Amino acid sequence: MTRISIPADSPYGLTNLPYAVFSTPGTAPRVGVRVADTVVDLAVALDDDVFAQPTLNAFMAQGHERWVEVREQILDLVSDDVPDTAVHPIGAVTMHLPIEVADYVDFYASEHHASNLGRLFRPDAEPLMPNWKHLPVGYHGRAGTVVPSGTDIVRPSGQRKAPDETSPSYGPCRRLDIEAEVGFIVGSGSPLGTPVSVDEFDQRVFGVVLLNDWSARDIQAWEYVPLGPFLGKSFATSISPWVVPLLALEAARVPTPPQDPEPLPYLREKNPWGLDLDLVVEWNGQVVSRPPYREMYWSPAQMLAHMTVNGASSRTGDLFASGTVSGPLKQERGAFIELSWGGKEPIEVNGEKRTFLEDGDEVAISATAPGPRGTRIALGEVRGRVLPANP
Amino acid sequence: MTRISIPADSPYGLTNLPYAVFSTPGTAPRVGVRVADTVVDLAVALDDDVFAQPTLNAFMAQGHERWVEVREQILDLVSDDVPDTAVHPIGAVTMHLPIEVADYVDFYASEHHASNLGRLFRPDAEPLMPNWKHLPVGYHGRAGTVVPSGTDIVRPSGQRKAPDETSPSYGPCRRLDIEAEVGFIVGSGSPLGTPVSVDEFDQRVFGVVLLNDWSARDIQAWEYVPLGPFLGKSFATSISPWVVPLLALEAARVPTPPQDPEPLPYLREKNPWGLDLDLVVEWNGQVVSRPPYREMYWSPAQMLAHMTVNGASSRTGDLFASGTVSGPLKQERGAFIELSWGGKEPIEVNGEKRTFLEDGDEVAISATAPGPRGTRIALGEVRGRVLPANP
Repeated sequence: MTRISIPADSPYGLTNLPYAVFSTPGTAPRVGVRVADTVVDLAVALDDDVFAQPTLNAFMAQGHERWVEVREQILDLVSDDVPDTAVHPIGAVTMHLPIEVADYVDFYASEHHASNLGRLFRPDAEPLMPNWKHLPVGYHGRAGTVVPSGTDIVRPSGQRKAPDETSPSYGPCRRLDIEAEVGFIVGSGSPLGTPVSVDEFDQRVFGVVLLNDWSARDIQAWEYVPLGPFLGKSFATSISPWVVPLLALEAARVPTPPQDPEPLPYLREKNPWGLDLDLVVEWNGQVVSRPPYREMYWSPAQMLAHMTVNGASSRTGDLFASGTVSGPLKQERGAFIELSWGGKEPIEVNGEKRTFLEDGDEVAISATAPGPRGTRIALGEVRGRVLPANP
Repeated sequence: MTRISIPADSPYGLTNLPYAVFSTPGTAPRVGVRVADTVVDLAVALDDDVFAQPTLNAFMAQGHERWVEVREQILDLVSDDVPDTAVHPIGAVTMHLPIEVADYVDFYASEHHASNLGRLFRPDAEPLMPNWKHLPVGYHGRAGTVVPSGTDIVRPSGQRKAPDETSPSYGPCRRLDIEAEVGFIVGSGSPLGTPVSVDEFDQRVFGVVLLNDWSARDIQAWEYVPLGPFLGKSFATSISPWVVPLLALEAARVPTPPQDPEPLPYLREKNPWGLDLDLVVEWNGQVVSRPPYREMYWSPAQMLAHMTVNGASSRTGDLFASGTVSGPLKQERGAFIELSWGGKEPIEVNGEKRTFLEDGDEVAISATAPGPRGTRIALGEVRGRVLPANP
């Protein structure tokens, strides 16, 4: 038996307890929970086959009451000795995609990001579209190319046409970018024909991941009219291996910024809340941005209510992301197209000039949030390195 | 034992043999093949558990050689007596969604449809966007709301703003429409980082369905800038229960219309082929349109090659649709927004004026195609009735 040692300042202390899917040499992927620098195998420790699965989906589908109950069981468990066979040092395990993604939706919920991109993509028009302050704009992405942190990102090829070129050409993306985002995972789905109200969010949503929505800006700019982004995004979307339960983020709730005009009734919350997450974007190990999630205009509950207001069902494993998190300040922008202002204002990374990503570059997005009783909790990092395009 | 009787003019003769998932009272959904007006239970008839599954996915994942082999086994089987326990009259079975949809992509491959919608949505601009003749424009739809033929369609509610209104309002869709489309189902997926060439289509694609991409035009018009259609489409997409194997459509191949400018090399086929499918759209039992699939500008192989050119993986169960099939003539338009020219030119349906769908209306889309040796084969119909919006 092992007593897990938890340093007082660990961001993975007893107020966090994120879930992931991991494997060790010779064992199949299964569900674990993180305590300090230890992964506890829940299939062994709680003797429950729902955790002996290669994704969190079966557990998530059991619903909110069960999520509360298991969290309490884990707290009891790790306050005492844990069976040795259930305990693995974090350095000895391999992390996997934590969920089977059902549908993936990406929103566009930061006013600062949407305004910046409007100025860059449509310099002669109002930066925000007329619909932007009335509804959380979103679109469906490719569920099959959501990959776990650490997956290498092969530079995509495709059609791109710069404004000064007369016709498009095929070749490797020349403006490869990131979008630092927060993803929300539906645990408990809703049937076709039944919208999810803003009040149901806690019952439906299991947890939160960090997400990098890799973006090929030149491919996107050429293709996106009139049906939206497609191949500029669908080559890869990386998520953190650790899913922080919504139950761990209660102390991180903060009011959303004021919404004007007042949203339509189906989007009105009594106490609209966002999350006080401090994101950090590192480019080749250098911090280049600190996007504040608390600045997001549309709330998580508004995104879910909007996504289902037309009667669309939701499923266990649905992933919906916030869109790029950008704050009002330059050093708070969550995409390189904003940081380098469309490539016109290079930024310095470890003494080298950068606008977009070069082959070999690595990006890591991490975040922390207030936990209960003055603690701080971490959201597991999402990291990826750019490989050269296929020949 | 039963000898299945096949009328000489049956569109479900031995040159068709489409697959579906069906159940009978007291049995679980499983895979069957249609012969004339009979459904043959393949789990029983071929004694193979891959057909005792609630979707075609496991069989499709076995790959092209196996698809050819099973088709030959079925031909042998139904030329002789079939065990009584494997034979069900079509009227005695319940049809289900035939596949577990992985990702759903919708293209926009009809020049006539894209031009018509351009004129209607953007009357002061060129009808076709500059990218349209360079790439098959497409976007991701919602996989979780793909439903089988016969599912009632509850009128969606949401935000809509008519051009003469100053602000959006919430309420039931006022311009509910259809899009008559053809859907292609990937049987054999491709790994991340490896584009599928135009020559690989036959190896990858298992079969074809008819598809109705129900569309809430007022919701779509308000939401779709700049990230594309979302809630205007995601409430429901209906597909036919019968999946016609690509192997049954070899006699239906026809050259695509000329493509000018010549597409980039990754989109070039030696012999670009489309399908000579004659679609029929019935509104409350009256034929209102006959869209010809042979007029489609972009070919099925070009759509798949484009969808993966950036390295996106494909999976068993991926569904990609053509977009609305519209021909050059008014009576060949596959969406009511085109038939009624944005609602300005009502059409007469059973003596009543119609622009968009009213509650209680029913739409059925069917199609036939040339089979080998002068036969004609049918694609199973996709049908749905509109129910009033939720209160």
